[in-house]
Amino acid sequence: MSTDDRRDPGFTDLGYARVDTDRAARQGVPEVVYGPGKEPAQVVGIVTTLLEANTGPVLVTRIDADAAAEVLAGVPGGAYDASARVLTWRPVTEPRGWRVAVVTAGTSDGPVADEVVAVASAIGLDVLDVRDVGVAAIHRLFAVLPEIETADVVVAVAGMEGALASVLGGLVAVPVVAVPTSTGYGAALDGLTALLAMTTSCAAGLTVVNIDGGFSAAMAAHRIVTGYERHAARRPPEAVR
Amino acid sequence: MSTDDRRDPGFTDLGYARVDTDRAARQGVPEVVYGPGKEPAQVVGIVTTLLEANTGPVLVTRIDADAAAEVLAGVPGGAYDASARVLTWRPVTEPRGWRVAVVTAGTSDGPVADEVVAVASAIGLDVLDVRDVGVAAIHRLFAVLPEIETADVVVAVAGMEGALASVLGGLVAVPVVAVPTSTGYGAALDGLTALLAMTTSCAAGLTVVNIDGGFSAAMAAHRIVTGYERHAARRPPEAVR
Amino acid sequence: MSTDDRRDPGFTDLGYARVDTDRAARQGVPEVVYGPGKEPAQVVGIVTTLLEANTGPVLVTRIDADAAAEVLAGVPGGAYDASARVLTWRPVTEPRGWRVAVVTAGTSDGPVADEVVAVASAIGLDVLDVRDVGVAAIHRLFAVLPEIETADVVVAVAGMEGALASVLGGLVAVPVVAVPTSTGYGAALDGLTALLAMTTSCAAGLTVVNIDGGFSAAMAAHRIVTGYERHAARRPPEAVR
Amino acid sequence: MSTDDRRDPGFTDLGYARVDTDRAARQGVPEVVYGPGKEPAQVVGIVTTLLEANTGPVLVTRIDADAAAEVLAGVPGGAYDASARVLTWRPVTEPRGWRVAVVTAGTSDGPVADEVVAVASAIGLDVLDVRDVGVAAIHRLFAVLPEIETADVVVAVAGMEGALASVLGGLVAVPVVAVPTSTGYGAALDGLTALLAMTTSCAAGLTVVNIDGGFSAAMAAHRIVTGYERHAARRPPEAVR
Amino acid sequence: MSTDDRRDPGFTDLGYARVDTDRAARQGVPEVVYGPGKEPAQVVGIVTTLLEANTGPVLVTRIDADAAAEVLAGVPGGAYDASARVLTWRPVTEPRGWRVAVVTAGTSDGPVADEVVAVASAIGLDVLDVRDVGVAAIHRLFAVLPEIETADVVVAVAGMEGALASVLGGLVAVPVVAVPTSTGYGAALDGLTALLAMTTSCAAGLTVVNIDGGFSAAMAAHRIVTGYERHAARRPPEAVR
Amino acid sequence: MSTDDRRDPGFTDLGYARVDTDRAARQGVPEVVYGPGKEPAQVVGIVTTLLEANTGPVLVTRIDADAAAEVLAGVPGGAYDASARVLTWRPVTEPRGWRVAVVTAGTSDGPVADEVVAVASAIGLDVLDVRDVGVAAIHRLFAVLPEIETADVVVAVAGMEGALASVLGGLVAVPVVAVPTSTGYGAALDGLTALLAMTTSCAAGLTVVNIDGGFSAAMAAHRIVTGYERHAARRPPEAVR
Amino acid sequence: MSTDDRRDPGFTDLGYARVDTDRAARQGVPEVVYGPGKEPAQVVGIVTTLLEANTGPVLVTRIDADAAAEVLAGVPGGAYDASARVLTWRPVTEPRGWRVAVVTAGTSDGPVADEVVAVASAIGLDVLDVRDVGVAAIHRLFAVLPEIETADVVVAVAGMEGALASVLGGLVAVPVVAVPTSTGYGAALDGLTALLAMTTSCAAGLTVVNIDGGFSAAMAAHRIVTGYERHAARRPPEAVR
Amino acid sequence: MSTDDRRDPGFTDLGYARVDTDRAARQGVPEVVYGPGKEPAQVVGIVTTLLEANTGPVLVTRIDADAAAEVLAGVPGGAYDASARVLTWRPVTEPRGWRVAVVTAGTSDGPVADEVVAVASAIGLDVLDVRDVGVAAIHRLFAVLPEIETADVVVAVAGMEGALASVLGGLVAVPVVAVPTSTGYGAALDGLTALLAMTTSCAAGLTVVNIDGGFSAAMAAHRIVTGYERHAARRPPEAVR
Repeated sequence: MSTDDRRDPGFTDLGYARVDTDRAARQGVPEVVYGPGKEPAQVVGIVTTLLEANTGPVLVTRIDADAAAEVLAGVPGGAYDASARVLTWRPVTEPRGWRVAVVTAGTSDGPVADEVVAVASAIGLDVLDVRDVGVAAIHRLFAVLPEIETADVVVAVAGMEGALASVLGGLVAVPVVAVPTSTGYGAALDGLTALLAMTTSCAAGLTVVNIDGGFSAAMAAHRIVTGYERHAARRPPEAVR
Repeated sequence: MSTDDRRDPGFTDLGYARVDTDRAARQGVPEVVYGPGKEPAQVVGIVTTLLEANTGPVLVTRIDADAAAEVLAGVPGGAYDASARVLTWRPVTEPRGWRVAVVTAGTSDGPVADEVVAVASAIGLDVLDVRDVGVAAIHRLFAVLPEIETADVVVAVAGMEGALASVLGGLVAVPVVAVPTSTGYGAALDGLTALLAMTTSCAAGLTVVNIDGGFSAAMAAHRIVTGYERHAARRPPEAVR
Repeated sequence: MSTDDRRDPGFTDLGYARVDTDRAARQGVPEVVYGPGKEPAQVVGIVTTLLEANTGPVLVTRIDADAAAEVLAGVPGGAYDASARVLTWRPVTEPRGWRVAVVTAGTSDGPVADEVVAVASAIGLDVLDVRDVGVAAIHRLFAVLPEIETADVVVAVAGMEGALASVLGGLVAVPVVAVPTSTGYGAALDGLTALLAMTTSCAAGLTVVNIDGGFSAAMAAHRIVTGYERHAARRPPEAVR
Repeated sequence: MSTDDRRDPGFTDLGYARVDTDRAARQGVPEVVYGPGKEPAQVVGIVTTLLEANTGPVLVTRIDADAAAEVLAGVPGGAYDASARVLTWRPVTEPRGWRVAVVTAGTSDGPVADEVVAVASAIGLDVLDVRDVGVAAIHRLFAVLPEIETADVVVAVAGMEGALASVLGGLVAVPVVAVPTSTGYGAALDGLTALLAMTTSCAAGLTVVNIDGGFSAAMAAHRIVTGYERHAARRPPEAVR
Repeated sequence: MSTDDRRDPGFTDLGYARVDTDRAARQGVPEVVYGPGKEPAQVVGIVTTLLEANTGPVLVTRIDADAAAEVLAGVPGGAYDASARVLTWRPVTEPRGWRVAVVTAGTSDGPVADEVVAVASAIGLDVLDVRDVGVAAIHRLFAVLPEIETADVVVAVAGMEGALASVLGGLVAVPVVAVPTSTGYGAALDGLTALLAMTTSCAAGLTVVNIDGGFSAAMAAHRIVTGYERHAARRPPEAVR
Repeated sequence: MSTDDRRDPGFTDLGYARVDTDRAARQGVPEVVYGPGKEPAQVVGIVTTLLEANTGPVLVTRIDADAAAEVLAGVPGGAYDASARVLTWRPVTEPRGWRVAVVTAGTSDGPVADEVVAVASAIGLDVLDVRDVGVAAIHRLFAVLPEIETADVVVAVAGMEGALASVLGGLVAVPVVAVPTSTGYGAALDGLTALLAMTTSCAAGLTVVNIDGGFSAAMAAHRIVTGYERHAARRPPEAVR
Repeated sequence: MSTDDRRDPGFTDLGYARVDTDRAARQGVPEVVYGPGKEPAQVVGIVTTLLEANTGPVLVTRIDADAAAEVLAGVPGGAYDASARVLTWRPVTEPRGWRVAVVTAGTSDGPVADEVVAVASAIGLDVLDVRDVGVAAIHRLFAVLPEIETADVVVAVAGMEGALASVLGGLVAVPVVAVPTSTGYGAALDGLTALLAMTTSCAAGLTVVNIDGGFSAAMAAHRIVTGYERHAARRPPEAVR
Repeated sequence: MSTDDRRDPGFTDLGYARVDTDRAARQGVPEVVYGPGKEPAQVVGIVTTLLEANTGPVLVTRIDADAAAEVLAGVPGGAYDASARVLTWRPVTEPRGWRVAVVTAGTSDGPVADEVVAVASAIGLDVLDVRDVGVAAIHRLFAVLPEIETADVVVAVAGMEGALASVLGGLVAVPVVAVPTSTGYGAALDGLTALLAMTTSCAAGLTVVNIDGGFSAAMAAHRIVTGYERHAARRPPEAVR
């Protein structure tokens, strides 16, 4: 089957996967591969297909070091971020002009924040990385607040009770994407408590993604930036109030 | 106490409430009053304070018809939207230039969508109102998709299993704010199932607000638009890629 | 049976109730009557017994206005606090010298705070009543923080995600008793989310009572003050470091 | 005990198991052995009994590779499907004339779909195997819909929020058996979210089996086909409308 | 807009609803209206549209008596089943030749069974109505089992622990659709326990619908019969084994 | 149909109910009617059938005063216990010689205890009724412990955290049937917390029935006494060690 | 400290444990040691103390093979049942004259049943061991029912939906102690579903113990037998009806 | 950056952590490091910073033996308590004059109690260590009650149903901090049941910390003592009643 034919339906059928080759056109970045439950050989096949069918960045998330090594052996040219558990090929190198602040409550939320950073950077967003400013010592947050306020989107990463998200939501005007993490024990319920707490936050307009959903938060930021880019494309910048 | 003095701390202390008179400066719109658990007389006091301390729109949410009537008797000039259960004074009349599509899965999700519409309209957003395009008859969604794609932000309002949010998330590029509703019975668990389903959606970058959180979704849209507005203010439009 | 005999076992058997007439000796205040599920006539019997067997304050909690009126008709001399839903006879009038700060996140948490105030006042604690300083507008909290820091015990009353408790826990040194409230809707799960969030707070040493447990928080403060009083009684003040 | 005697009660008592030797007569296929919690030696005993007492296919589900090897050593002639974790002896080779479409949302749902395929094939159903057509890229589903519509029963296999089941339920007329999978993390709650979502689907007439219940779905398809077969046997085909 | 034009998209847009006028063609029966959350006037509009756009039965489910009366005033010709809470216009009068056994565990499950009966009858299925044969007195079930075995589909309706569904699932060969009901109290958790129990039944191939989902079970039966009808249409009856 | 014929199957089919007329022979007392979800006319029919088919006591549980009055009008001779919500005809008057202690933690658990007392008394058990000896004032329990130790079965009725059941379980040797009640609020979760706590009690051999399951506890006591009675019947008393 | 002195308080203080040396006198058998969370050396100390302070059987439950071997090295004379994970010293050899039927739904429930058998046998109860008669093939149960009916207590051991307990509860007259097991997956929720189902059983008077609580069920049987023994001791056997 | 400058903001920014160097001034003891989710090298950096910036004790909690060894290699002078999983440098050696009783229900709750002891001792509290006095053998508790009553704060550590906390709460007058533990299985739900039970305790004024939250309880005791110390500092001891 020729490449042209294969692309007609907007996907490539590999048997075990139907790779969405239309994603970049539809949503701005190629399909990102969800690692768990896939054999390394399957990931190799999917990544290879995505690299061929697109020119943009290709990523695999939630993949452990052993599987990543197998995949990299099959598809050279990628880089593995062990803390973020993200594989990346062809990251965007020309910045899109928007800044995402990634703010964690504690050091232990680091790996989830690392996933936000890895994905957001790979798709062309400028990242402001702020760690360990949770409310147990809230003066740390106020010290960095002016810098956070330079961001276009704020990602609040917090486990346990997740109070940082509400506090940030009360302070900044721009979108706050809250990422509950599984940091904590007992009543933290593996992050479910933070998720529920964040969705019932007293700070108006906060939005929430899945527990440990660093990837999701980065993509939410991508959607926000894309919203502006498409708006600007539809209406000349000079028309924007 | 003089007005000047009262404003110094950024809030007005009414004893039963400390009204946030700094909110509009900080986040673009005055504090919105959460109705439940407040005596009508308290709402009157808070609204009066907000109207004096601000020039922007003042809203009360989740207030039933009887309480609304009492409040309106105490603070004339407002309007009550019975389906949305929202009271509004001084809605923004000059549009901010951004469109929010409010899309429901079913007719029964109407009141939650009405809350999104009431709040979003009052704070100056242009609303595209699309009802009853859930996945049980998905051709309805495709028929209106081109129109939805003209929006800068999409609010997906759905109860039961909430699948509409995922489908929309897979189709559009801009931010999708998912609002789980309490529509349904049994395993719908009063909206908890939709909330969990939406936070674990397979559509990347979807974000979620509280169950029946029409107000929250409108404010999330406000944050997104505010992000654009502040970004544009910081960087001259011509500098934006 | 003579009064002397009746008191021997440390309780009075009314058939439907065994009134704990030993409570004041054991724990400093007479048994407090839990209102729900009791007939007004039963409450009358229990209160009468407690008033006879003790000299201290007698209280009934969680009793609605109609039942309270019936009880007051049967046992004159009491006062009903409608917002707190508390009945009180013989409140302590000589202050014990300790201050409890009752701090709410929002106006809607008022009735729960009212219960803390009603009970704490009735048992001789000095109350500092601070309303509506939740984290959605955190500058309100900082404005009153110096006053809160004069208290010996802080009761943090908050619904929704309950973040106020964590923030207070990070700021003050003294005991913080967190009271989750049922304020909120959807993911607030009638206060369960706040309860879980508060028990997994990042602020070290916070303790938690039941949802809407204003009475419990007041009694926790009573225990703390009693601990000091008994400690001082055991060891002469001059021996305390 | 002679074979005749042993069969009288419709089961064989092995001490640790009472093997249902009447199942094939009652429900069309012999008892299928549930692997977990059984010693390999026990599985050998049960399988041997089933092979002797029946002429139809004998299967063991949810058995890992090591245990499967031990069992095969004890009962030769079987085949192990490692992905499906199914052992099979004497699969049905004459097709019954009915087609089951097994449709997954993602590649990661593969092992559950493999179990459906293994069981359905072994009991004589024709399988149409469609992978990775979840709603994040819904055009993939529409591309294969005409083929799916040739099936007599559709099994929808999906984790995370499980939206694929609702979408399929809205599109096809025949029975849709939804299988929630444990694919996903965080709010996916190990498949519980998908299970709840599927049972409260807006698509009328969808039915649901257990999380990761590939075997259950195959047997549900078997029941449907058996229903047709018995209906046809009761009423001559020419009488069917 | 002419009728022809209106039908082009397969739905009719009433503003508050997009009525699926394509449903009968796609799935065999017209869209069934979900009553809760809809104003009677809205139901009138939707039913009127459905009656015009179709020739088949039109139903409204979960509608209480007062609303039903309002709707019937607006759309004459319908009948209200108060126990089932179902409104029906133009029920199918020519039987389709298939029998559904509706079997309840207890008398208290009656209204849910009534909904199954009302819907199944209205769409042309023959109903065998068997009440109160739960396992607390299992000899009742065995007395009616031969009659149940004449059905093509069995709907098992049970609350509390829902054991009837498993027992039936172990006895009959045809599809068993389990309907958990909210009958019971305490640990019954409003039907959630029965739902979970039924989805983890030891009887292979049982499928489950929503709590109190009588409508869902009837539609599941409709799908099963439709599967056969379409199969027979595709392949001449004489080819069916 | 003659009476003889009707009794053959061991039940009477009333259409809406299959009354178990074999229960007394099988388990010692006639079927007890569960009130909720049944029309008064249905209860009349069932009770009439039971009175005719048996000579023993006939009871209806969980029936409110209005429905009870309707039923009594249709079936004279019964008595209604309003607190227990139990209707009784023909209570056993000859004691069976066994004592059940019904012990509550608080006065508010009274109605559930009343149900135990009503049912146990009606079926011939001697009841020792002990109220309000919960662990908040544990000296009350020790005062009555010698009397409780004269019972053959102890029923522990407690809400909130249900600690009384564990304490009793640690003190007495005979069977302790724990009844969690819905007394309490917030984290009591309508009795679910007490149910879980009682099933994970540190006191060995405690058993648990449903939340507010006073009827269940009485029947559990009935089973225990029946066990003794049948044991004694099988083996002459003199043979018992 | 002399042995006499040590026994005065009814326990022996080992520092890490206060061994209840009064248990046999109070409840008929010595304290049974709960294995998890204890160091082998601690178990050795506790068992040694119990063997010295009592003459009856001493058991350790839920102890794995490695720890058991360490303990047996420290306290010779015991026996380890690997499937039941129970260690036993000095089992009762003179039968008490009562029979317990242990009935499982499936072979996979074996280890929990083994724990019932091990504990019940060790404390002098006669065990009737019936495996694998779950409702998926209910004729197996009816085949053994006459034998089960010879028992004085029935222990029903079942996982998944646990329907066997309800069916047994409906058939036999004597006490049925239901043991939910963690057999199953997905919606079985590690046994929580079976626990909830069994506590809300339609079979009157069923009682429930903890998930996988084989030890608890054996002790519940012990309590029942003890109840009779004490009753008989109080009232001469010839007085028992 | 000089040390002076670094301390200005009240924290030290290590990139992966912002160490709260102001904690001791604010709350009496330096920040305690939460071990999970941190690399040993990160813990070394944080501990080094804390040791430099403070003079008081420095602790790491919930750190396993391997990580502890790595940390100790990087920061000599600390001590590791393997059962408590706590690392300590510079414990307070001058007692503060207050006693905390740590009381466990069972031996298996030992490690959580060890954490309370390790932390409380390190911060200068006198510990009374009482093990294994749970309510299954309540005479053990009464034997040690006089000694417990000498404590200023009681920490009740219990798993399973956690009844010990309620019983203690009913007996002593001083603060009772309840620590639910994950001891138990099945319905213990990894400690969630104990947490819920303790928060809904019938003993007034009990407060609760997280599951297995030994550290939290010790810090709650610290707050209570600090409350007294600060009270005494504000008001001369001779003024305390």
